[in-house]
Amino acid sequence: MKSEETIDFHLRWLWLKIFRIYNTEAANFGGTISVGYTLLNIDKDGTPSTKLGPKMGIESRSLTRTLKTMEADGLITRTTDPDDKRVMVVRLTDEGKKYRETARNTVLDLNEFLLEHLDGDDVDTFMKVSRKINTLLDEKNIFSKNHIPQPKNP
Amino acid sequence: MKSEETIDFHLRWLWLKIFRIYNTEAANFGGTISVGYTLLNIDKDGTPSTKLGPKMGIESRSLTRTLKTMEADGLITRTTDPDDKRVMVVRLTDEGKKYRETARNTVLDLNEFLLEHLDGDDVDTFMKVSRKINTLLDEKNIFSKNHIPQPKNP
Repeated sequence: MKSEETIDFHLRWLWLKIFRIYNTEAANFGGTISVGYTLLNIDKDGTPSTKLGPKMGIESRSLTRTLKTMEADGLITRTTDPDDKRVMVVRLTDEGKKYRETARNTVLDLNEFLLEHLDGDDVDTFMKVSRKINTLLDEKNIFSKNHIPQPKNP
Repeated sequence: MKSEETIDFHLRWLWLKIFRIYNTEAANFGGTISVGYTLLNIDKDGTPSTKLGPKMGIESRSLTRTLKTMEADGLITRTTDPDDKRVMVVRLTDEGKKYRETARNTVLDLNEFLLEHLDGDDVDTFMKVSRKINTLLDEKNIFSKNHIPQPKNP
């Protein structure tokens, strides 16, 4: 089997292309894909900063950097939760809400564009397979059967 | 439509998970996903360094960094093409060939693991839709219809 035919090959290229498209769109608004994606993951009533990282699947260190930029740009506020002072709550400013809407439209427009050009049943299957792969990738022993790593520096 | 149901949402999470799995595997060999992926893209007879970036879909700056590390680790050599001194050819060392094989097995093992647990016809549809999306994403005017960017700083 050629590597071009593996499932991961497709996923890598598709996400790489979407990443670039989103970054280009975000740049039109003076932003980045990280900012856009963070905006989309902050709820209307605010989201505890500790919940944002896991929700987005990114490291807290790089999220902290993005949140600092967003606060400096007036897109969010970060305040201590009065009920639990250990918790920092991230909230959208009015400006942040406006850009969240733009990010949302970008995501929905791209999705609509794709759906317009794809067969509906095929998309359903694509989604079903994607959900199944997502579950499979959480399994602990993917490589246990035929693949025993030989550490370079034991 | 919830953002969880968009095509890009699935692609982002799937690639993020695969990225982590590969990086964890690569770490067992003292490497990274960038090194493994570069190994896979160097032909047996060597590949001009200028062709590697486009082939892998990454920026030449970050590729140069990876190639330097790989040369220092004895996985590749970089030599001037005797026929065209402007061209730098990247070749695998014996050590590099060994690790290329490991990277290849990792990719094939993951793919086999997924295929074992998925319906064959569904996978065919998944691949067909992936190829189609890949083509659609190259179109220049994805956002032209309903999405007119309003630059933040015109």
